[in-house]
Amino acid sequence: MAKINDNYLKLQAGYLFPEIGRRVGEFTSANPEAKVIRLGIGDVTQPLAPAVLDAFHQAIDDLAGTENFAGYGPEQGYAWLSQTIIDKSYKPLGVELKTSEMFISDGSKCDCANILDIFALDNMVAIGDPVYPVYNDTNVMVGRTGEADDKGYYQGIVYMPCTEENNFFPSLPSEKVDIIYLCSPNNPTGTAATKEQLKTWVDYALANDAIILFDAAYEAFISTPGVPHSIYEVEGARQCAIEFRSFSKTAGFTGVRCGLVIVPEELTGTTASGEKYSLNKLWNRRTSTKFNGASYPVQKAAAAVYSEAGWAQVKATVDYYMENARIIREGLTAAGISCFGGVDSPYIWLKTPEGMTSWDFFDKLLQECFVVGTPGSGFGPSGEGYFRLSAFGDRENVETAVARIRQKWGK
Amino acid sequence: MAKINDNYLKLQAGYLFPEIGRRVGEFTSANPEAKVIRLGIGDVTQPLAPAVLDAFHQAIDDLAGTENFAGYGPEQGYAWLSQTIIDKSYKPLGVELKTSEMFISDGSKCDCANILDIFALDNMVAIGDPVYPVYNDTNVMVGRTGEADDKGYYQGIVYMPCTEENNFFPSLPSEKVDIIYLCSPNNPTGTAATKEQLKTWVDYALANDAIILFDAAYEAFISTPGVPHSIYEVEGARQCAIEFRSFSKTAGFTGVRCGLVIVPEELTGTTASGEKYSLNKLWNRRTSTKFNGASYPVQKAAAAVYSEAGWAQVKATVDYYMENARIIREGLTAAGISCFGGVDSPYIWLKTPEGMTSWDFFDKLLQECFVVGTPGSGFGPSGEGYFRLSAFGDRENVETAVARIRQKWGK
Repeated sequence: MAKINDNYLKLQAGYLFPEIGRRVGEFTSANPEAKVIRLGIGDVTQPLAPAVLDAFHQAIDDLAGTENFAGYGPEQGYAWLSQTIIDKSYKPLGVELKTSEMFISDGSKCDCANILDIFALDNMVAIGDPVYPVYNDTNVMVGRTGEADDKGYYQGIVYMPCTEENNFFPSLPSEKVDIIYLCSPNNPTGTAATKEQLKTWVDYALANDAIILFDAAYEAFISTPGVPHSIYEVEGARQCAIEFRSFSKTAGFTGVRCGLVIVPEELTGTTASGEKYSLNKLWNRRTSTKFNGASYPVQKAAAAVYSEAGWAQVKATVDYYMENARIIREGLTAAGISCFGGVDSPYIWLKTPEGMTSWDFFDKLLQECFVVGTPGSGFGPSGEGYFRLSAFGDRENVETAVARIRQKWGK
Repeated sequence: MAKINDNYLKLQAGYLFPEIGRRVGEFTSANPEAKVIRLGIGDVTQPLAPAVLDAFHQAIDDLAGTENFAGYGPEQGYAWLSQTIIDKSYKPLGVELKTSEMFISDGSKCDCANILDIFALDNMVAIGDPVYPVYNDTNVMVGRTGEADDKGYYQGIVYMPCTEENNFFPSLPSEKVDIIYLCSPNNPTGTAATKEQLKTWVDYALANDAIILFDAAYEAFISTPGVPHSIYEVEGARQCAIEFRSFSKTAGFTGVRCGLVIVPEELTGTTASGEKYSLNKLWNRRTSTKFNGASYPVQKAAAAVYSEAGWAQVKATVDYYMENARIIREGLTAAGISCFGGVDSPYIWLKTPEGMTSWDFFDKLLQECFVVGTPGSGFGPSGEGYFRLSAFGDRENVETAVARIRQKWGK
C-alpha cells in the first residue's frame, strides 16, 4: 500500500499567488471592461537584452549541426559560464570564488527548495516573517515542522519578525538555530541589509556553527553604495553561508530559467557522529544525481548578460524598473501612504492606509483602482497591514496605477 | 550546529559515469593518438530537427519584444504543449489524458528523483537490477534504506534481478512492495516489455494498492508492433501508475532539457490515518512550490516535435540511431557475442566474451579497440558480466567500432 508524505497535509490553503490569480480572475470576469494593472507577482515585463538574444540564437544554431552540438552538459553548469560570473560579478566585489563552488541551475526557486535535501531534519530553522513562502512551505513539506497555529506559524520553525520596528531586518533569536534564511535585498519588504547588519548574522553563524542560506536574487537592483551584493563581502561568510542568485530579475529570465548556488569549499556541516563534512561535496552529489544541468542555450544566453554590450543593456532595463520604483514610492508617499523599499529593490512595501488588513486593501485596490498588488499577510503574519507593489511593469501602467491610487487616497 | 543529511554517506563510490570519464581521461592522456569512440553514456549526437530549431528561434524572438514576451509560465507547463502531446502522442495509442494530468519539466532525471518527495519514507520500494542508478541512489539519499551490503544492495530495498533467465523483465516479488520502478524500453538492457508483461505488474499494483513509477524515456525507439509506448495502454494502469517521458532521446534534447510526468487523477496514495489522497494534487503542490516551470523557448521547441514536419524529421533521426543499433547488434552477434535489446531501444546489452567481468571488458575494449561502453555491473550486481553499448553515435564511428570489435573477437 503506497503511503503519501503526510507532511504535505500540514500545508495551509493555496499558495499565495494562485489565490491572487483566483480573485483577479473573478474580478475581470465580472468586469471585463476594467483595465487591470498587475503589480502583484514580481514578474518582469521588458524584453531580453539584444546581446542576450543574439547569444541565445547562436546557441540554437550550435544545435543545428554536429560540430558544436551540445548534449548532456556538466550537471554543475558549464565552467565558461561560472568563470564569467565569477570574473564579472564577484571579483569586482572583492569576492574570490572557484568554479567548483558555483552550481548553475534552472532557477532560484528550485535551488532554495532543493538545498534542504543535504541537511538533517532535526536542524532548527529560522525564517523571516514576512518571507518568500517557498522557504517556509518547503520546510513543512520535508517534515521539519509540526502543524501550523492560528497565525500560520508552524511548530518547530523559529520565525523572525521583520517590521518597521527593526527596520525590516531580523534580530538575533533567543533560541539557538542551525539554518537561517536571509534575503537581501528583501522580498517582500524591498529593504536591503547593510554590511553591519549581515555581519551580526555571520558572527552568530560562526559562533553557533550555523549555516546561512542567503538569497541574493535581487542584488542587481541595489543602488546604494556600500550595500553588499553578496554575503561573501562580509568577512567569515565563506565559512557559514550558501548564496543563491538568479537571472530571473537581473536579466528578465523568469520564463527562460537560470539561477545559481554558491557553496564554498570551506563550508561544513556536522554528521550524526560529530564529524565535519563538506557541504560542497554533498551539494555536488545531490546535483549530479538529481539534476541534469541547465539548458545549454539558456546558459549561453546567461553568459551574454556579462558581455560588455549585454551588461549595459541589462543595466538599462534594471534602471527602467527602478525608475518605476521611484515613481511608485514617491507617488504613494505624496498620497500619504508610508512606503519602504524601492531604492535597492524593485519592491515597494507599503503600510495599508486606514489600518486596513492586507487582503481588504487588496480587494479595495483591485475593485476601485483596478490595480493588483500582493497582500503582505500572504508572506507571513508580520506582513499583516502591509502590502507589496512591484516595479516590474510598463512605465505607462505604473504611472496610471499611481495616478489612480493618488486619486483614491491622495490628499 | 547545522547537521547534514547522513543518508548521503551511505552512497557508494562515485556515480557510474564520472568513473567512466575518469578511466577514459586517463587512457586518452596516456594515448593521445588513439581515436576513441564513445558508445558509453547514452547521449545523442545528431542535430535537432529543423522544425524544432525554427520554433526555438521563434520563441526567442518572442522574448525580444513586449507583445509576446513570456515571463513566469505555469509551473505545470503550458497547456498548448500538454495538449499537443496528448493529441499527437497519447491519443493514437488509445490513451485519454487531461492536461491537468501532465506536468512538463526540465527532464526525466529530475522527475524520477523528485517524485519521491510525495511518498512516505516507510514505503517498500522495488527496483530492477540492473537499473538506471538514479532510482536507487535517490532512495538512499532520501533515507529509505540502510547501508549497502558487499554486493551493493541497500538494506530496505527489494531488488528484482533482470537477467537472461527471465528475459530481463522483473518477476513479481515474494514480499509485498508499495512502489515499483519499471522502465520500458529498458535502460540498460535495451529490452521492451510486452503488454502481457506489464499487465502482470498492473494487476499486482491494483491488488496491493501499490504505485508503479513507469519510465518511458525510450518509447520513441519501439519498432515492434504491439509493444506498449505507454503503460496506460494496459487496462487499470490509470489507477496505479505514474509515467515519465522525456524529449532527451526522442528529439535530441539532452542538452536542451525537457521531460514530463503523467499523474492520472484517479491515482491515490494512503495517508497515515488510512484515507485515500490524490497523488495528482500532491504532485501539483510539489511542482508549484518547488519548481518554476520549464524554459519557455524549450517548451515551444518541444511542441514543434509534434508538428508534421517536426515529427517526420525526429523520426528520421530515431531511424538513424536504430540503424546504428542494427549494425552493432548484428556485427557483434556475427562476432559470436550474445546481444540483447537494440530492436525497441537504442541500447545493446551484451554478454561479455570469455566470462570477463564488466569492468575488465570495459578496460579491454577501451585499451584494445579504443571503444567506450558502459559496464553492466555499474547498473547493479545482476549487470555483472554484461555490457551496454549505445547506438547514439555517428554512423562512421559505429561502423568503425564494430569493425574493431569484430577484428578483436571475431571468428
